[in-house]
Amino acid sequence: MVKERSLIRQIRRMAAASGNSAAKIGIGDDCAVLRLKPEYEFLVTTDLCIENVHFRRAWYPAAVVGHRCLTRGLSDIAAMGGEPLACFLSLGLPANLPQAWIKGFLRGLLALAKRHRVQLAGGDVSSASQITADIIVTGQAPSGTAILRSGANPGDRIYVTGNLGGSAATLKQLFAGKKLKPTRSNPHFYPTPRIEVGSHLRRYRLATAMIDLSDGLSVDLTHICEESGVAAILGSDKIPIGKDANLELALHGGEDYELLFTAPKNAKIPSRIVGVAITQIGEIRNRRDYSSAIQILGDNGRIRPLPQRGWEHFKNQR
Amino acid sequence: MVKERSLIRQIRRMAAASGNSAAKIGIGDDCAVLRLKPEYEFLVTTDLCIENVHFRRAWYPAAVVGHRCLTRGLSDIAAMGGEPLACFLSLGLPANLPQAWIKGFLRGLLALAKRHRVQLAGGDVSSASQITADIIVTGQAPSGTAILRSGANPGDRIYVTGNLGGSAATLKQLFAGKKLKPTRSNPHFYPTPRIEVGSHLRRYRLATAMIDLSDGLSVDLTHICEESGVAAILGSDKIPIGKDANLELALHGGEDYELLFTAPKNAKIPSRIVGVAITQIGEIRNRRDYSSAIQILGDNGRIRPLPQRGWEHFKNQR
Repeated sequence: MVKERSLIRQIRRMAAASGNSAAKIGIGDDCAVLRLKPEYEFLVTTDLCIENVHFRRAWYPAAVVGHRCLTRGLSDIAAMGGEPLACFLSLGLPANLPQAWIKGFLRGLLALAKRHRVQLAGGDVSSASQITADIIVTGQAPSGTAILRSGANPGDRIYVTGNLGGSAATLKQLFAGKKLKPTRSNPHFYPTPRIEVGSHLRRYRLATAMIDLSDGLSVDLTHICEESGVAAILGSDKIPIGKDANLELALHGGEDYELLFTAPKNAKIPSRIVGVAITQIGEIRNRRDYSSAIQILGDNGRIRPLPQRGWEHFKNQR
Repeated sequence: MVKERSLIRQIRRMAAASGNSAAKIGIGDDCAVLRLKPEYEFLVTTDLCIENVHFRRAWYPAAVVGHRCLTRGLSDIAAMGGEPLACFLSLGLPANLPQAWIKGFLRGLLALAKRHRVQLAGGDVSSASQITADIIVTGQAPSGTAILRSGANPGDRIYVTGNLGGSAATLKQLFAGKKLKPTRSNPHFYPTPRIEVGSHLRRYRLATAMIDLSDGLSVDLTHICEESGVAAILGSDKIPIGKDANLELALHGGEDYELLFTAPKNAKIPSRIVGVAITQIGEIRNRRDYSSAIQILGDNGRIRPLPQRGWEHFKNQR
C-alpha cells in the first residue's frame, strides 16, 4: 500500500500543470470535479490495454505503450467530434515491474495528453499479474451535435482520413520477428488521434455518422451499418493504402485511428481538413437490397460481400 | 473477438432500461453522451477490482463481487455529496471463466445500479489472466457544492455514519478459513453506499470535508488531515463498533463504505440522517501542535499518536 501511495504521489506530480482548466479538482479527492461549458454535453469512453493482449513489452518502449493507450481514448472522443477534457487512468502493475517502465509509460501518455491539453485528473492503482491500463477519456460537445454511428443514410458518401493499413503492416512485421525502431513517423508506434478533424466535421455539421478505425475498416464500417440500419459499398480502387500495406491490410487491419465518416451526397467535403487528406471510398445503400452489410466493388467490375475481419485476425496468424 | 462482441451485446441487453435519463447515448457508440443539469459540475471516479487482490472467487458469489465493485465507485460519489449519473465497466476476463460467473457478476452490479438509478452506459471488454473490473462512476453536484477532503478546519467536529469494523471482522473470518453465507445484512458482502446521507450533507451544507471509509478510519482520516493541513484527535470510547468487530478493527479495518466527515463545532448535526446513525468521534486540531496527524484519547485519559494501518494490514496477516 505504501508503494501504491508513493506511486499516486508521483503520478500527481507528473500530471500537474498539463491540460485545460476543466478539472477543478483532480487527483487527491474521492472524485475529480469537472466543469463543462454551458449547453454542452459530456462524452465518456473507456479502453482497456492489457499486456500480451494489446501489447507486448518486448515490442514497444514503455512510452509507446503510454502513447498508444491514450490514443485509443482520444480517438473515441475524435469520433464523436468532441473536445477532450480530462483523462483517468486505472493501473494494475506486477510487483516486479521496473520503476523505469512505469515512468516511461506515464511520460509517453502525459506527453500526448499535454499536446491535446488533457489533464490526467484521477484514477486508481493496484497490483496485478499483467500490466493493465484502463484509460478513461472525457470530452464535451455542444448539446445535440456529437456525431453518432447511427446517422448514416442511403445515398451518403463514405470517407476516411489519412491512409489505412500502415499500422497493421508494422504489426505484421513485429509478429514475423522483425526488430523495428519505433519512429515518430510510424503510425503503429505513434498514432495520431484525429481530434481536430473530428471537431471540424462536427462544427460545420458535415458528417452524418462517424467512427474511428480501431478494429479495422471492415469491422468498424459494419458498426456504422448496424447502428444506422444501412448497407455500404466500397470501391477497392478508392481505399487510400498506407506505407508497406496492401488492400487486404487496409480493409481489415486495425489500429490506424483514422476517422471513417459519412456525409450527404451533395455535402462539400474538402480534400484536406486541417492538413489531413480526406478520401471518398464508397457509398451507403439500402440494407434491404443486400444480403450482407458491406460489399466491395473489385477491379473486375464485380461486387462481392466483404467479410468482417478485424486486426484480431492478423494477431492470430502468428 | 466474436466472443467479446456477443458479451457486449449481452451487457447492452442487461443494462437497458435501468437508470435515469442522464445517458442520452449509452453502449453502442464510440463514447457515451451524458446530459448534466444546468449549473452542475461533473464528478468522475474509477476503481479497479482485481481477482486475488481485491477479492477471491472462493469467498464470494459472482453477484457479491459485482455489488462490491459498484459500491466502491458509488461510495466515492457519496463522499462528494454527489448524485450518481451513469457507470462504465472495463472488464478483463480469463478465457476459461464460466459464462455463469460473468452473468452473476453483472446481475449483482446491475441490481445495485438500478437501486440508485445509475445506467451502465459503456465500457470495454478484453481477455486477461485475472478477472479485472475497472468501474467508473460519474455523478453531478451543483457547481461549487461538492464536499472535498480539503475543507476541514481546527475546531471542527469529526463524524461517521453507521458502525465501523464490521466488514473487516468478516474479512478476518474469511482469512481464517471460515465458510460464511453471504447474507444481505452483512456489510462485508453487501455494503451500502451512503449516497442519500452524502447528498443530504451537501444539500444542507453541513459538512466542511468528507471522505468514504474504504481503506480504514486511520488511513482515510489521514487523507482529510493531509489535504486540509490539519490534525485530528479521536475518542477511543466514541467509535461506533460494528458487529463482531473491536476497536482495532474499527480504527484500521477497511471496506465499511461509511462516510467520515467534519462539521463546524456549532453545526447542528442530527443523530440520524435518512435513517442512518451519525456519531461524533473526535475533533480537528491545529497540525502544528502535534507530531503526527491523528491522535487517539484512550480509556486511561492519555493521548497517543494513532499509526495508519489500512485493511491491507489485515490482508497480510493470513
